[in-house]
Amino acid sequence: MKLNCDMGESFGGWAKGQDSHVMPFIDMANIACGFHASDPLTMDKTVRMAVENNVKIGAHPGYPDLIGFGRRNMDIAPQELEAILIYQIGALDAICQKHGTEVSYIKPHGAMYNQMMKDKTILSTIMKTVRKVRPLCPLVVMATPNNDIIRAMAQEHGIEVWFEAFSDRAYDDQGYLVSRNEAGSVYTDFTSIKNQICQIIEEGCVTTITGKKLSIDVDTICIHGDGEHAASVSEAAAVMRRAN
Amino acid sequence: MKLNCDMGESFGGWAKGQDSHVMPFIDMANIACGFHASDPLTMDKTVRMAVENNVKIGAHPGYPDLIGFGRRNMDIAPQELEAILIYQIGALDAICQKHGTEVSYIKPHGAMYNQMMKDKTILSTIMKTVRKVRPLCPLVVMATPNNDIIRAMAQEHGIEVWFEAFSDRAYDDQGYLVSRNEAGSVYTDFTSIKNQICQIIEEGCVTTITGKKLSIDVDTICIHGDGEHAASVSEAAAVMRRAN
Amino acid sequence: MKLNCDMGESFGGWAKGQDSHVMPFIDMANIACGFHASDPLTMDKTVRMAVENNVKIGAHPGYPDLIGFGRRNMDIAPQELEAILIYQIGALDAICQKHGTEVSYIKPHGAMYNQMMKDKTILSTIMKTVRKVRPLCPLVVMATPNNDIIRAMAQEHGIEVWFEAFSDRAYDDQGYLVSRNEAGSVYTDFTSIKNQICQIIEEGCVTTITGKKLSIDVDTICIHGDGEHAASVSEAAAVMRRAN
Amino acid sequence: MKLNCDMGESFGGWAKGQDSHVMPFIDMANIACGFHASDPLTMDKTVRMAVENNVKIGAHPGYPDLIGFGRRNMDIAPQELEAILIYQIGALDAICQKHGTEVSYIKPHGAMYNQMMKDKTILSTIMKTVRKVRPLCPLVVMATPNNDIIRAMAQEHGIEVWFEAFSDRAYDDQGYLVSRNEAGSVYTDFTSIKNQICQIIEEGCVTTITGKKLSIDVDTICIHGDGEHAASVSEAAAVMRRAN
Repeated sequence: MKLNCDMGESFGGWAKGQDSHVMPFIDMANIACGFHASDPLTMDKTVRMAVENNVKIGAHPGYPDLIGFGRRNMDIAPQELEAILIYQIGALDAICQKHGTEVSYIKPHGAMYNQMMKDKTILSTIMKTVRKVRPLCPLVVMATPNNDIIRAMAQEHGIEVWFEAFSDRAYDDQGYLVSRNEAGSVYTDFTSIKNQICQIIEEGCVTTITGKKLSIDVDTICIHGDGEHAASVSEAAAVMRRAN
Repeated sequence: MKLNCDMGESFGGWAKGQDSHVMPFIDMANIACGFHASDPLTMDKTVRMAVENNVKIGAHPGYPDLIGFGRRNMDIAPQELEAILIYQIGALDAICQKHGTEVSYIKPHGAMYNQMMKDKTILSTIMKTVRKVRPLCPLVVMATPNNDIIRAMAQEHGIEVWFEAFSDRAYDDQGYLVSRNEAGSVYTDFTSIKNQICQIIEEGCVTTITGKKLSIDVDTICIHGDGEHAASVSEAAAVMRRAN
Repeated sequence: MKLNCDMGESFGGWAKGQDSHVMPFIDMANIACGFHASDPLTMDKTVRMAVENNVKIGAHPGYPDLIGFGRRNMDIAPQELEAILIYQIGALDAICQKHGTEVSYIKPHGAMYNQMMKDKTILSTIMKTVRKVRPLCPLVVMATPNNDIIRAMAQEHGIEVWFEAFSDRAYDDQGYLVSRNEAGSVYTDFTSIKNQICQIIEEGCVTTITGKKLSIDVDTICIHGDGEHAASVSEAAAVMRRAN
Repeated sequence: MKLNCDMGESFGGWAKGQDSHVMPFIDMANIACGFHASDPLTMDKTVRMAVENNVKIGAHPGYPDLIGFGRRNMDIAPQELEAILIYQIGALDAICQKHGTEVSYIKPHGAMYNQMMKDKTILSTIMKTVRKVRPLCPLVVMATPNNDIIRAMAQEHGIEVWFEAFSDRAYDDQGYLVSRNEAGSVYTDFTSIKNQICQIIEEGCVTTITGKKLSIDVDTICIHGDGEHAASVSEAAAVMRRAN
């Protein structure tokens, strides 16, 4: 079980996230590539920090929408989606090269991630793209009851997928995330977040919003790097992970 | 003697240059990387066209200034200059990878190119950067009477340089470009441009603005891809080059 | 019957449209405001040209998406939609002030225009915004069989609307535009475009894609400024308009 | 003596400054206009906050350089400088209109401000521009021993100027700012900043870096809104100002 976290989300003079406090505790740093956040210099500093902490680096490409932080749906044609993915992956990979490392996996950001989970055409475009330029890099996708369908698609496309769970989001009884519009969908207190991480690591399950235990098949847990408890959550998660 | 030309300078829905007419006649395509011109999809199309025409691809990185087309001086600190170079080179290289090719050389664009020729600190930063991420890629610089100094710097930094002459710019008796502010500094008619190319290819010299013949030590000639005579100039140059 | 045309769609060094050839023949110049096209200097030149030709100036605001030319749907929250409208209208209006004129009407661009026609919440946000900052400026909307509904909404919001027809788009028997995905939906030849303009001006109707004559209630016809026939179409339209 | 402060420097999801803590204590809010910082929605929120606190609003236009926060020199031609000034002033003014207020003065930001103080051509372009579009808005410039020269230029251009002193910068014996490269040039402790503000308000002078008292002719003091002591400094300044 790996801990992944979005990193390098500052932009120019604007700081975001608690990267230096979180980096020591995670396994995988999803580094923004300049389209929805970050810039070349921020990417350089973030890669350096990841290398110093022995953290794997993943490309975290997003839509070209700084003001919306890549969280707004955009109608990007498949050919352009491929191009912006390759562009961002390549940019980050060259920065990794400078630091003697490389991009190890791909995790789309924000609206691109959400649209990928809803629309098989987009998911397929992303898989084809990964296959074309980084065939050995796993694609990180959301764990859902449809893991098998996605695993089959990945196999067909000749790539690997890693499934992730979210540390601070409530799950419904079917194993989907509860919509952000519903009460209780996002955990903001340290204990709830820590408990969910703990349960995933130790028991491979989550407690759903109705109180049921539900098995969840995941390879990695996503920790948030800019919340109030980012540092303490990631430390607690690292401790639990080591103990298991 | 290689013919090089700036390519892929369209941006989104805005077209620029006569890439498809010029590409068949050149040896080296300097492809913009999205900071001063181009975008991921344009880069993809341009790389495809270069590959189809057996043209070497060079990264043509610029300052982050779309509206000024990278032609305005900007005070970019060395650390950031390195980062924006690596970012752009990597982005283009990944697109090259998709098409089974790679970035073969580096030629900075516009104000970055001019500042590199005037300021040894900037030149040195660029050379160090090339060495760090693409040590086998030659750096294209302007041929001047100082070729030896630059060649020595390149050797010290462990990289190769290629010197380029301009097909449509007048030279002074010392072998420097005549300032754009002076009358006669830029050739706009087909014959003058063709003659200069011809003289460089066949005799290794240019006729200066005062009418003297001056030897010039160059590896490549820069053809402009968006002028009135772009296609005919590049075709004529290709014919001459083959004949020599 | 007024002729309107999108103008000022160049960006930095990238030229687009045949503004100087079209401007003499139109009544209303919809000037891009820097979000999907144009830039402050282009806006300045375009406003000057409109003033010289006695053409009314309309703000033509778009989504913040240069690469997609404002043609991609984006999920912009109402509060932000209001803010980007006011920002763009104000920017253009100040440039108008310099030239002794002002913004006379508002016509949203591309995806913003299309989403406004499909989604009453967006239309209502736009109407409220116009009312807040330019209550005397009519809002240009697409003429459809629902003109009355939109007119009622406008009245309720305390603004005026102008309905526009398209010179080069086929209409179906209900008076809606035929989808771009269908064959014959876009006229590209001079005669068809000229005929449609002629029919709207002289008879107040269009011939639908099935060959029926259909009355259409419009205040203005949109001419395209960047097509092959932009100049000749606008000239022909101006001649017809004057004759009627 | 007015207290002015840069406000509205957040960008999209990136927060910057302590606007809500500082706004109650200042007289003049210099609001960024989207080129070097801010965005339409941030401008809207900042204007609202200024209005609620009875604070005058000034346009704070900058160079188009988000990553460099408008602090990097750029070679912007006079015609374009005029256009980007008018664009930004107009955009902010329309947002002010929505809130029942207006732009009351103009203060260029960062590199534009510094280049204006060094280069009379740039200063003159800015003065002409203010005269063209907001002739009643004073232009805020740095107080130096050359106030008279600048005052004369302003008179010639038909505009008003306001001179400002900096609360946290050391002055040399001639009344110029000590270069940031020199030790002691920037005050970072609460007491030094407070003392300088106090001396300017109460005695109309500063203590130079060599310990001399020097009269300084200023209309307004610039407080920094994003430093550690932003809130306490502005409160202390407001208290002193009221007492005098």
